[in-house]
Amino acid sequence: MFKDYLGSSKQHIEQWLGEVLSSPNQEFKPLYESMSYSLMQGGKRIRPILSKAVLEMLHKDPADYKEFLCAMECIHTYSLVHDDLPAMDNDDYRRGNLTNHKVYGEGMAILAGDGLLTYAFQLMTENKTATPQQKIDAIKCVATAAGPEGMVGGQAFDMLSEDKHIPLEELKVLHSGKTGALFNASVELGLILGNADTATRTALMEYANCLGLLFQITDDIMDYRETTETTGKPVGNDLREGLLTYPLLSIVNDDNKDKLLEDIKALNNGGDEQAIIDYVIDQGGIDNTLAVADQYCKDALAALDAVRDFPGKEFLVMAVENLADRKV
Amino acid sequence: MFKDYLGSSKQHIEQWLGEVLSSPNQEFKPLYESMSYSLMQGGKRIRPILSKAVLEMLHKDPADYKEFLCAMECIHTYSLVHDDLPAMDNDDYRRGNLTNHKVYGEGMAILAGDGLLTYAFQLMTENKTATPQQKIDAIKCVATAAGPEGMVGGQAFDMLSEDKHIPLEELKVLHSGKTGALFNASVELGLILGNADTATRTALMEYANCLGLLFQITDDIMDYRETTETTGKPVGNDLREGLLTYPLLSIVNDDNKDKLLEDIKALNNGGDEQAIIDYVIDQGGIDNTLAVADQYCKDALAALDAVRDFPGKEFLVMAVENLADRKV
Repeated sequence: MFKDYLGSSKQHIEQWLGEVLSSPNQEFKPLYESMSYSLMQGGKRIRPILSKAVLEMLHKDPADYKEFLCAMECIHTYSLVHDDLPAMDNDDYRRGNLTNHKVYGEGMAILAGDGLLTYAFQLMTENKTATPQQKIDAIKCVATAAGPEGMVGGQAFDMLSEDKHIPLEELKVLHSGKTGALFNASVELGLILGNADTATRTALMEYANCLGLLFQITDDIMDYRETTETTGKPVGNDLREGLLTYPLLSIVNDDNKDKLLEDIKALNNGGDEQAIIDYVIDQGGIDNTLAVADQYCKDALAALDAVRDFPGKEFLVMAVENLADRKV
Repeated sequence: MFKDYLGSSKQHIEQWLGEVLSSPNQEFKPLYESMSYSLMQGGKRIRPILSKAVLEMLHKDPADYKEFLCAMECIHTYSLVHDDLPAMDNDDYRRGNLTNHKVYGEGMAILAGDGLLTYAFQLMTENKTATPQQKIDAIKCVATAAGPEGMVGGQAFDMLSEDKHIPLEELKVLHSGKTGALFNASVELGLILGNADTATRTALMEYANCLGLLFQITDDIMDYRETTETTGKPVGNDLREGLLTYPLLSIVNDDNKDKLLEDIKALNNGGDEQAIIDYVIDQGGIDNTLAVADQYCKDALAALDAVRDFPGKEFLVMAVENLADRKV
């Protein structure tokens, strides 16, 4: 049932996405091609599906709000296109396909990202169902989440934290910005457009918050124990890029800090990542992380418990459970 | 009087700009510093000044709409930050200062641009004076102008047109997107927020359209005859970068096309740009361009004539005249 819901929602969203981008003239076509390349390259569409589930919960037809759902995916896609650039994560492949700049060049990839981001805001203004006040609230929610106070802030902090030890509290700020902000906005978007009452709003925002942190922290675990086949990323990839994730930061102390940071920096010169991975696991880094993930799960489910049953509630419950096992 | 108006408007706008950016936490401060560096680096502030003049014409206090004026400048600034990147124009200096990526690195410059763009939309939602419908109309106008149908489209087309001959008609599409779209949006923003009637709206949009094209075409002339001191760019800079501007495109014909394109490409290997410049001038390229500029001037002033007198009308007239002499 969960897989069916995910599958049919993804299909709806990809159909809507396929309709929104069309060049106003011959001259701008290459830009639109580059934007479409990344927008239509698959992915889980988890952010618009979250908005869709919340709209359904509030007895709204998601098709009436498709511009907002597409906007969320445009923003998520732009962030991936810019993230993959050589000056950022420098990735050649995403989801098994060449990244945007590998196909269209760096300049066009920068512009495709800029185009998708700006177009997301245009799209939201073009919706015919929401009231002007709902549109303003939705745009404010999305811009705040995606902008310097949210996702862009988290990405900048992430970039500057490479190869550096940061306290666990700061890692939460980073996670909240980098992944959490857009997750929260996806849920909040549904609440705004569906006119949710205050109690529902409070419960669902608590749910979204836990879900976003759970998403990020299970991503952190995968760097230590999943295989390339399931995640598309080799084990130890974050470590090699100097990204200090939860398992590692949870076992850092004054005694091992200097040596660990040195070992991680040495990975670029043929150092042994398996030794670091084994050490982190041995010191309880994974157990610490699983314990925190478990707490986020419980909190997310408790938040949902506070809301009466509604169509799609099962999906939100199963999203948490599947995320905990990292099947989403 | 024109200089006074420009000066005092710039001062107001820079004061407002100085108030809008503040980091929500310690962790995101470096991003905000990079955003502020470019936002507060001066410039003519011509776009928000245009919006301000139109608001004053419609008897509104621009201070009540400062979030919109700041948003226009955030968007203009983001476009410069991304434009200067190595993958785009690769400029080390702007207005005599190091460009953003030369100070903060490429990754941070990409994020600073993304941050300024997204924040512009957040800012517009936070205004307390405009009605929700006015805000939606304003956001739609700005997003459409700045996005793939407008500025981003023009920039992408510009990038792909380097070293290529394009028909004069396509150059107009390029100019309309690259510079014209944001000029138009600056004026339209004022018209939306000031509740302009249809006649005023039509006249002022015609004015804005001519002003944007005039701005771009006088910029094209400067590549041929101004000195480094007045423009900050050396003569022949566009030519060396393979940007085919109006003076050149207006004298291209089937007989000289291949040789001209070859000569321009050879500039990267020590070719002689003065010879090309002299040839273009000799063939009447500057005269052609001045004639078109003159027509845009006349059209802009005629559009203003159709509107009754209003405070600030003199500024709009003088903006055209000063632009024609390229004193703005």
